[in-house]
Formats: sequence, structure tokens, C-alpha cells
Amino acid sequence: MDIRKLVGGNVARLRKKTGLKQEPFSEAAGISQSYLSQIENGHVNLTLLGVNDLAQALGVPPIELFRELSEMNPD
Amino acid sequence: MDIRKLVGGNVARLRKKTGLKQEPFSEAAGISQSYLSQIENGHVNLTLLGVNDLAQALGVPPIELFRELSEMNPD
Repeated sequence: MDIRKLVGGNVARLRKKTGLKQEPFSEAAGISQSYLSQIENGHVNLTLLGVNDLAQALGVPPIELFRELSEMNPD
Repeated sequence: MDIRKLVGGNVARLRKKTGLKQEPFSEAAGISQSYLSQIENGHVNLTLLGVNDLAQALGVPPIELFRELSEMNPD
């Protein structure tokens, strides 16, 4: 899977777990809602520091953004 | 820990596990040896695609570059 889609999917999954919609979460993360939307859709080639900022805003270690779906709900 | 140092440390650790020195590994990864050295020293804010290329050159999934040392050798 494209690493941008992997990370974007995890950002969306973890954000929804916080119960926040894109608008309030993007504000808390200090980015625009449209940029967050592009990230969650796998269209952004984030840098390590960008990944780190998002992980902090989500309250998780950066590694959580690189989990494959298969790792999370084994059959 | 600074995410650039975390990833750089893992690149160096995993590269040494392949038995390759920086020169031959950087050639195989398609980057200069000096750039690899900067990455391994935690001085490069890699992008996701950059992380992906390095992980492929190391033969590991990208998540392996984000493991904390404590995760690898529990006391």
C-alpha cells in the first residue's frame, strides 16, 4: 500500500477515535481542514516532523500511524 | 526522542544487520553515502516516500523504522 495512503488512513481512523470531526481536530493540530482532508486521503508526502506533529495531536506515538490494517484486526 | 534521530538510528541499526557498510548500501539505495550518513545521524527530515524507499532498500516494512529502542530489547 502507498505509504501516504497508509498514514492518511491511520490519521483518519485515530482522529475518529478521538470523536473529533475534521474541523475541530485540524484547528487543534494547527493545520487547515482542507490540508487535513488531503492528508487523510493519502495525497500528502508528509515529512517526519509533520508526522510527529500529527501523532502528538492524536495523542499517539508516531509508530501508530504506520500500522497496517491487517495488524489491527487479525482474522 | 526526535523522530529524525529515531528513524536515523533505526536505519543505521538495520543497515548494519544487512552486513553492508554505508558506501555499498547507499549505492544500492540510490543515494549518496554522505546523505545516508546525515540520515543515520538524525539530521534529515525525510518524507514518507523517502522513508518508504529506505525501508524497501533495507527489506523491511516502513513501521520498522519507527520502533523505539525500548520496544526492541525489553529489560
